[in-house]
Amino acid sequence: MNGAESLIRTLVGADVTACFANPGTSEIHLVRALDHIPEMRCVLGLFEGVVTGAADGYARMAGKPACTLLHLGPGLGNGLANLHNASRAQVPIVNIVGQHASHHLRYETPLTSDVEGLARLYSKWVRTSANASSVGSDIADAVVAARTAPGQISTLIVPADVAWSENGSIAAFPPLSRPAMPSTQAIQQAISMLRSGLPTAILLSGDGLYGTGLATAGRIAATAGAKLFAPYPVTRLERGAGLPAVERVAYVLEQGIDQFKEFRQLILVGAEVPRAYFAYPGKDTCFLPPECRIHTLATASEDRLSGLVAVAEAFSSQKANTSTRKPERPELPHGEITLPGLAAVVGALLPEHVIVIDESMTSGRGMMAATKGAPQHDWLGNTGGSIGIALPLAVGAAVACPDKRVLCLTADGSGMYTLQALWTMAREGLNVTTVVFANNDYAVLKREFSYLGVGSPGERARDMFEIGRPDLDWVQLAKGMGVPGLRVNSLERFANALREGFRGQGPKMIEVPL
Amino acid sequence: MNGAESLIRTLVGADVTACFANPGTSEIHLVRALDHIPEMRCVLGLFEGVVTGAADGYARMAGKPACTLLHLGPGLGNGLANLHNASRAQVPIVNIVGQHASHHLRYETPLTSDVEGLARLYSKWVRTSANASSVGSDIADAVVAARTAPGQISTLIVPADVAWSENGSIAAFPPLSRPAMPSTQAIQQAISMLRSGLPTAILLSGDGLYGTGLATAGRIAATAGAKLFAPYPVTRLERGAGLPAVERVAYVLEQGIDQFKEFRQLILVGAEVPRAYFAYPGKDTCFLPPECRIHTLATASEDRLSGLVAVAEAFSSQKANTSTRKPERPELPHGEITLPGLAAVVGALLPEHVIVIDESMTSGRGMMAATKGAPQHDWLGNTGGSIGIALPLAVGAAVACPDKRVLCLTADGSGMYTLQALWTMAREGLNVTTVVFANNDYAVLKREFSYLGVGSPGERARDMFEIGRPDLDWVQLAKGMGVPGLRVNSLERFANALREGFRGQGPKMIEVPL
Repeated sequence: MNGAESLIRTLVGADVTACFANPGTSEIHLVRALDHIPEMRCVLGLFEGVVTGAADGYARMAGKPACTLLHLGPGLGNGLANLHNASRAQVPIVNIVGQHASHHLRYETPLTSDVEGLARLYSKWVRTSANASSVGSDIADAVVAARTAPGQISTLIVPADVAWSENGSIAAFPPLSRPAMPSTQAIQQAISMLRSGLPTAILLSGDGLYGTGLATAGRIAATAGAKLFAPYPVTRLERGAGLPAVERVAYVLEQGIDQFKEFRQLILVGAEVPRAYFAYPGKDTCFLPPECRIHTLATASEDRLSGLVAVAEAFSSQKANTSTRKPERPELPHGEITLPGLAAVVGALLPEHVIVIDESMTSGRGMMAATKGAPQHDWLGNTGGSIGIALPLAVGAAVACPDKRVLCLTADGSGMYTLQALWTMAREGLNVTTVVFANNDYAVLKREFSYLGVGSPGERARDMFEIGRPDLDWVQLAKGMGVPGLRVNSLERFANALREGFRGQGPKMIEVPL
Repeated sequence: MNGAESLIRTLVGADVTACFANPGTSEIHLVRALDHIPEMRCVLGLFEGVVTGAADGYARMAGKPACTLLHLGPGLGNGLANLHNASRAQVPIVNIVGQHASHHLRYETPLTSDVEGLARLYSKWVRTSANASSVGSDIADAVVAARTAPGQISTLIVPADVAWSENGSIAAFPPLSRPAMPSTQAIQQAISMLRSGLPTAILLSGDGLYGTGLATAGRIAATAGAKLFAPYPVTRLERGAGLPAVERVAYVLEQGIDQFKEFRQLILVGAEVPRAYFAYPGKDTCFLPPECRIHTLATASEDRLSGLVAVAEAFSSQKANTSTRKPERPELPHGEITLPGLAAVVGALLPEHVIVIDESMTSGRGMMAATKGAPQHDWLGNTGGSIGIALPLAVGAAVACPDKRVLCLTADGSGMYTLQALWTMAREGLNVTTVVFANNDYAVLKREFSYLGVGSPGERARDMFEIGRPDLDWVQLAKGMGVPGLRVNSLERFANALREGFRGQGPKMIEVPL
């Protein structure tokens, strides 16, 4: 068996069974191996930002890594922005990047580049395979690294001759080790803070925001009278009727400060101190009042879940108030398109178990309030601030969860970075309903321009912020990639289109002109 | 004046007058400065690969750098693949990349990344500005670095507080220094080789392929009986009736070996030894016969032009044969679409002074033969092998040369990486006619699959190489971005569409189904 085959078979043995790919000549032997190993699902992206963003979406929902297959340095380069987002999402991803044959590399042919240098920017683990007999154990190590808490990006660089040479062997995948427990001191400290009676916020991340982790955090919050928060850059938040109430931290500085002004204590469970993305002249960026005491119950690489369970046990004798979300939906609104109206339509119609991808930027800021009491669903955000992840995330989430529906909320500006993902949705027949909020603006930048106090944008600045002239026609763009789409000009039509999206088979695109 | 204004005004003073941009919050003060400095033309790209590829195309035709304006690490990341190509093109580019305010950087907010690490991958010069009073001289240094022979990428990273703080000052731009002359020995050696009577090839790059350099090389070739070659990854080649004949090195290994088999001597003028892009098991990748002697007249960073002139003077007393291309065009063909037919239509109709961008991949391999005797034109290729540069290059070339027409030949696979460039063509009203060869394949990969001797692609491998199912509809994609387009199903219709493209105003897209 050649190196390529040993690599793919080792991955399958390690339960990595989805490969998002955009291969080239140096990866041909890997493609040939994939040809014969049907246990690995291969999904083609027509641009590498789709590939890496899809691997992120897959990992968020599957709770295990997919692999990517990328062509040399430039292929990895095109995938970097969404690897930036994935590194902030703290999800596991295993990148496989081809490289020239070892004896060819010295010639500085046109496609030669510093693949290791590129890989190191966002990977916690990087290795170049030395030969066919070791590539199997190399990829097993890559999977172990990716699955190290809280989830990391690992990149294995595979020279073409390593892939095509014989003497490959399948490596066994070792049992996963649990992450380290938080210290007893950290747990005790959290318990005593929660018993103090001071207004306390708990900011969660990772598996603290879904499943058992969320349920446990909910019990703690209910009995101790604390309030649960999720970071604005949220990887995955389970929410809706019957689940503990979790408030997402705001993006805007003043709103964030307002959210935390009542709190005197903050307990971090794998999360960072909440802060504005950007600095502004003469302003502090921290959302917390100066007198708020900060305590880390668990770091991101520690066992958040066990930490929460240990804290919850201290309160187990107390009767928990039921502070889960009540089922409630906005009334289905009618008439002209407005942002609150659009949010209300989504809140009124969202079915159970939908995965909502949210990169709706300024247009979707009312979405979470309108859906808080909707049937249970998952909410996936942009974690690294590099726009252009919604459509790829939707691809990956839909591949991970074929039985669920995906609602992808994107702005027109962010959507354009990786619009090629629509084609993958069509090819794979994914049940994704994409809503494009088309305001013809990088609206967030206009807002920031004013916010920075530099006056109103002039004609030339507006040219940099407005993406109309010509207006993008998303219906044509989607159809050009095989995704049926329509433009809606009333809330009724939006509601109808959404219903149809949730009911039909395959992808659908709804453009909402604003 | 704040740092941002001093930066832009220094650029304008250094004759950098085009800015390809995709800014974000951390670059707001630079956008504000651009708002008030109309000498700098600003061109928005909806994806950063468009921005960097356009800067490359601009530099190739303007012979001077444009600047880019990119948003933090992810913005630069999205631009890397076309910076890879630009680094191989050896063109000058000045990247301006925003960074968080210095005091904000330590907080590891979501958009924090290693911008310097990203920049170093393809930039020969990288600096982070320390304060507003030095950013003017920093950007002047960046321009000097970019214009260092043969042309380099330089990247200045500008923290937001450097841009917004006062005490900026405009820096003077020093006179450009000539690159070093090749050594007398190198020149004498070249002369004696050319006098030897042995079959001799001259492989040129950079300014050896247009203008005075090409004319001088042509005189040398004619008098010494040598043959001129351009690398397959060609930055800019001036060609057509009345110009010296230059043969482009082939992409395919066997074809390249065939081109050079008769030669016993190769003189390199800023170029590298011709070689296959990729290695294949058991095959040598060099195009030259083993007995061929290789001599470097000038390295890429030396003064190619003066080297050629010095060599030409040694032959000045001899009468030059006229070996320039005769005017000749194929007859305008009719009937069904075929690859030779498409090439003949382009050869028959190409007007004078057109800039041809060629990333037509497997579909366009007959284009150069069919256009060799057409009226004079420029030919710009993909220099780094990272596909997805044609549309951005066309944007940049058209901005650099508003009086010329651009013919952009792209494959469907390569076009999809950076299709957002069509929108910029529409917004700027650029006279670009884009031809998309739509074979629904990564055809080069299918060819490589067979070439590597691993049999025929199976169903799953074909899924990775075929980009149909669903077929892309380029007419819809172009219209979605404001570019009128049509699909042609005969050579007559292709000819009509091409004529209209060369005559009309603004961009046009022609899809050719294959």
